[in-house]
Amino acid sequence: MRPSCQYYLFLVVMFLFSNSVAQTATLQAAELPSWNKSDARQAIIQFVEKITQEGGPDYVSPDKRIAVFDNDGTLWSEQPVYFQLQFAIDRVHQLAPEHPEWKSQQPFKAVLDNDMEAMMASGEKGLLEIVMATHTGMTTEEFEQVVSDWLANTKHPRFNKPYTEMVYQPMLELLDFLRANGFKTYIVSGGGIEFMRPWTQSVYGIPPEQVIGSSIKVLYKLRDGTPVLERLPEIDFIDDKAGKPVGIHKFIGRRPIAAFGNSDGDLQMLQWTDGGDGQRLMMIIHHTDEKREWSYDKESHIGRLDKALEQAGKNGWSVIDMKQDWKRIYKFE
Amino acid sequence: MRPSCQYYLFLVVMFLFSNSVAQTATLQAAELPSWNKSDARQAIIQFVEKITQEGGPDYVSPDKRIAVFDNDGTLWSEQPVYFQLQFAIDRVHQLAPEHPEWKSQQPFKAVLDNDMEAMMASGEKGLLEIVMATHTGMTTEEFEQVVSDWLANTKHPRFNKPYTEMVYQPMLELLDFLRANGFKTYIVSGGGIEFMRPWTQSVYGIPPEQVIGSSIKVLYKLRDGTPVLERLPEIDFIDDKAGKPVGIHKFIGRRPIAAFGNSDGDLQMLQWTDGGDGQRLMMIIHHTDEKREWSYDKESHIGRLDKALEQAGKNGWSVIDMKQDWKRIYKFE
Repeated sequence: MRPSCQYYLFLVVMFLFSNSVAQTATLQAAELPSWNKSDARQAIIQFVEKITQEGGPDYVSPDKRIAVFDNDGTLWSEQPVYFQLQFAIDRVHQLAPEHPEWKSQQPFKAVLDNDMEAMMASGEKGLLEIVMATHTGMTTEEFEQVVSDWLANTKHPRFNKPYTEMVYQPMLELLDFLRANGFKTYIVSGGGIEFMRPWTQSVYGIPPEQVIGSSIKVLYKLRDGTPVLERLPEIDFIDDKAGKPVGIHKFIGRRPIAAFGNSDGDLQMLQWTDGGDGQRLMMIIHHTDEKREWSYDKESHIGRLDKALEQAGKNGWSVIDMKQDWKRIYKFE
Repeated sequence: MRPSCQYYLFLVVMFLFSNSVAQTATLQAAELPSWNKSDARQAIIQFVEKITQEGGPDYVSPDKRIAVFDNDGTLWSEQPVYFQLQFAIDRVHQLAPEHPEWKSQQPFKAVLDNDMEAMMASGEKGLLEIVMATHTGMTTEEFEQVVSDWLANTKHPRFNKPYTEMVYQPMLELLDFLRANGFKTYIVSGGGIEFMRPWTQSVYGIPPEQVIGSSIKVLYKLRDGTPVLERLPEIDFIDDKAGKPVGIHKFIGRRPIAAFGNSDGDLQMLQWTDGGDGQRLMMIIHHTDEKREWSYDKESHIGRLDKALEQAGKNGWSVIDMKQDWKRIYKFE
């Protein structure tokens, strides 16, 4: 049977309207399937409807649709320790044979003894020493390989899954939903920029140039005539707390209209986003699900959520209750 | 007359193949109309043909099509002084009433006396003092306004045109041509990032987040409860010479496949681009047209081109001869 003339006409009409059809379709209930019908989900959908409505009072042109996401605890889990810290710990073990002095030298001794308490007691200075010893002294390309190898060969201790599967399914859907509505999605994380960039495209659909994070200094040089960038044991930028608006300004050069975080480290990013004109969406993920993920806020050493939660109430920011609002946490469930 | 069934079928086929049709069309001779048929133009077209040919040995996927452009002397003119330096000079005059001490204090005295020689004699330290006095001590939004106002109200001394019209028509066509072929185009300039971002979208079609430049530090703070970023009198990053590959790595996180510059300040960016695998395009604009623009290279204090020209010959980089290769320099000609 040959397709009818009407069928071709139908296809033409479909192609012609494919853009507007796609746009309307994104606002259907079929989107965000892992989200329960909650206030949080409603806030997202209403915000996107408002700012994409051409001719409407809240319309935002596509080039200004910038959305920023914290990473640890917002896009993927951060317990029992930040995954990048686990990476650093594993590397201390791996590099230990080349550093016999570490056996008696803190904070490395604590790491090698698996004494987490002593390691944490070494404070910011100790953690910085661990990062410098494990993240520098090689080229940028060599480091990228080290990160990729670690991710390919390591599993999360509780869920026995690769770390790159410890990402939140509802947030993946949110990223897709925003991009389908013309948003540029960025990561703005306190984590290392070069720890994230090797895998954010395949895991989140976020290309390296849309990843903002903490960084160490690199030096350009010719090594046997070949240009390389060498990673130096020196902090370049800390993309946390008041550093987040600075990083956003430095890398993007304009203010986001939507921001998503989960801890006090995201407070200033949420404030800065809120401070602009027009419709804004600020959301905080509250870790409330001890069973499917973890439950923590004010008292946690990792991802502490205290002041930002208080500010959310005062400023009308949305709080996502993981237990109540998410049908599914991880894809593998 | 009703359109025939074949006509609808034809439209369907056209829509289905519209992407590949568009891609082939961009490679026609009609592109780059302000370029004479020269080796330089040929090098551009051949490179783009190779890396966009799906299934070909040199194919590069669209996400990796990164092209970087120096700004001063590459996208717009830089004589008789860098335009940003003229901006700083004008601001010294404008701010002088608030700084009576400048009348007797170098390098400000030299600026107020219009003594360019004494000003240049103050060296890098002096120029830095001028930049700090004129570019800091306000919020990022206030500075953006100052830049926009200056550009709207100032004309180039020789051509009596706004500075934003002192841009090279052939380079605008090149930017369009690359973008039509899936490239992301970036500026990588020694100039101030916040001096460029307010106007690069309207002038070059390059959004703020694709502008990399030198920067000063900014501080996030609440001013009467409103979040602001305050510009501090402290250098954050110098995006010149060996700083250019560092800036590229920091902001983009992957290596460009095409780079365009005009001075020794671009040498390392060209080397870094050249150092990657596969097809690469490195081009240097040689200022050879005293009549329509300026003629300078080795001996110039501004935009000195010496080592990079020597390296171009050794490495097979293309040199664009402005006089020979460009039919038109500026749009207003």
